[in-house]
Amino acid sequence: METQAVGHLMASEIAEQPAMLQRIIDHGSGPAWLIAAVLADRKPRFVLLAGRGTSDHAALYAKYLIEVRLKLPCGLVSPSTLTAYGSRPDLRDTLVIAVSQSGGSPDLTETLVVAGERGATTLAVTNAAGSSLAQAAELQLDVLAGPEHAVAATKSYTAELLTLNLLIEAWAGGDSAATQALPAAAAELVDRRDEVRALAQRYRFASRLVLTGRGYAYPTALEAALKLMETSYVAAHAFSGADLLHGPLAMVDPEYPVVAVVPDGVGAVAMEPVIGRIRERGADLMVVGGAAALAAGPQGFVLPGGVTEELHPIIDIIPLQWLALEIALARGLNPDQPRGLSKVTETW
Amino acid sequence: METQAVGHLMASEIAEQPAMLQRIIDHGSGPAWLIAAVLADRKPRFVLLAGRGTSDHAALYAKYLIEVRLKLPCGLVSPSTLTAYGSRPDLRDTLVIAVSQSGGSPDLTETLVVAGERGATTLAVTNAAGSSLAQAAELQLDVLAGPEHAVAATKSYTAELLTLNLLIEAWAGGDSAATQALPAAAAELVDRRDEVRALAQRYRFASRLVLTGRGYAYPTALEAALKLMETSYVAAHAFSGADLLHGPLAMVDPEYPVVAVVPDGVGAVAMEPVIGRIRERGADLMVVGGAAALAAGPQGFVLPGGVTEELHPIIDIIPLQWLALEIALARGLNPDQPRGLSKVTETW
Repeated sequence: METQAVGHLMASEIAEQPAMLQRIIDHGSGPAWLIAAVLADRKPRFVLLAGRGTSDHAALYAKYLIEVRLKLPCGLVSPSTLTAYGSRPDLRDTLVIAVSQSGGSPDLTETLVVAGERGATTLAVTNAAGSSLAQAAELQLDVLAGPEHAVAATKSYTAELLTLNLLIEAWAGGDSAATQALPAAAAELVDRRDEVRALAQRYRFASRLVLTGRGYAYPTALEAALKLMETSYVAAHAFSGADLLHGPLAMVDPEYPVVAVVPDGVGAVAMEPVIGRIRERGADLMVVGGAAALAAGPQGFVLPGGVTEELHPIIDIIPLQWLALEIALARGLNPDQPRGLSKVTETW
Repeated sequence: METQAVGHLMASEIAEQPAMLQRIIDHGSGPAWLIAAVLADRKPRFVLLAGRGTSDHAALYAKYLIEVRLKLPCGLVSPSTLTAYGSRPDLRDTLVIAVSQSGGSPDLTETLVVAGERGATTLAVTNAAGSSLAQAAELQLDVLAGPEHAVAATKSYTAELLTLNLLIEAWAGGDSAATQALPAAAAELVDRRDEVRALAQRYRFASRLVLTGRGYAYPTALEAALKLMETSYVAAHAFSGADLLHGPLAMVDPEYPVVAVVPDGVGAVAMEPVIGRIRERGADLMVVGGAAALAAGPQGFVLPGGVTEELHPIIDIIPLQWLALEIALARGLNPDQPRGLSKVTETW
């Protein structure tokens, strides 16, 4: 029996992403278009999204897209108000979308059941078509990631992002032509693991780390922080660029590493004053960003061009997934066996 | 000229809270009732809240109250979609509430201006009646905290919480009788500074800390984390109890202090399995909670009884404000002069 390398599960699922993205484009666009047609007909006036952990970050990405592309007010559900506190809100004209890899967390299922009873259109976006969450929903979309075995979710995250993007773009009446650039860009990033491994070495002994981004890049910062917490046990803390300036910046000093996610676009322009303030604090700054952000001189990792700002989160997380994996390996940890976690987390 | 103690600004503003809460009950209830009557007449179907930093935590508290007491779907605004990305959502039948101590951040003002143009009813909840934010709003409520000089907001936070509670209770057709218990409970907590100082000593060398709570207690955990980051430069990280189990728990080990905020009530019941999981990880746990939570044996700080779960956040933050101040003093830092921050943070 062949011995497999430590972290092989997470590594292989990171590496699957280019082919998986192509599969979603090929086979997920049709279902997304059908659901979008139903939603366009229902004309919901408000959208609520629910998710936990990684899927909460996918939900936040969808929130930005829905606000910008569909011009609908949108919020993230606090499941405990429906579950623990028993609130029964008026959800007519409201779409409630639950996002979950496993579809197995009872609080999300109860959220959809209650939402349906209270008049909402309910949609489950999951990697588990037969799950209790999918069964509780009126509508469902399979994110087509295939079985995910690593505890730290990687491919299911990008599958959720792309599926939500296809759905929202179809609903907005756009087309999905821009997504064709994703598989090649993802493949380039998967292939740059060695470059990330070199960057990871300097975080070998970092116990704390701040990640920041703005707009569409903020979910990337949050998801990268979660991967670092899960696999490397770094106290990785993500803030939107604006929120960072409203207090947390005080804790940043030259011993405190900061990673800024700054793909080219509107979010990068909004991040410029934030980057300036981080530099004033003398922080150790690494930029994972576009050519413009890196032209200013910080060390960093250059993201591929040719991908729209809205789609960038789908590929930008890949080097950060590698970063979490490589820091874990540098520390002698096994990222496939995070202590204290299991693959399906049930919360009520 | 008398020399004043280090941290006297923050300390004096913490100590002002009992009298301030009484003032808000006496003079803020009438204005809150008037605004509530307008809102009850408008019958918004969806509520969006916007705030930054401390005021974002007050907005989250209001989100829970609105969902539970008013049964309205509710979301937190991502200001950048309106400002940086120029989204122009359909906000008819929507109430947009901006919460800000200074009323001086351009992104929040622009959010209210755009929201009004797009059909929303707009309300500014501020400590600055003449501010640009208050002027941009159709309706406004003064939180009556009085001038706040310390960079780390303390009394303006509890003033925002109580003002939002008075507004939402009045709108829900309730009365504010339960608030009468607040000033005495707050005074008890202000007077227990020495007890918190003793607890603070063991965090003298902690570089990281996790706070957790559920439901109404989650904003308390978030705000306590922000105070610790601002004044003591601790990497203090707040998670809802459910989100903690979805990944971040892995980083918690016996060297990683955890503070759980568990006032008696529904949230405490929902926290029981979370507390169990934290104990399994061998974490150093301190509970700031009710008698029930502390009966299980962890070290902790017992919160006063006689206050409803909905109102508890207004007093529960007080020992955590003291904790941030005392850790800062134990480290020889001046909590009145957080590095890299100023009182009014302008973000776009």
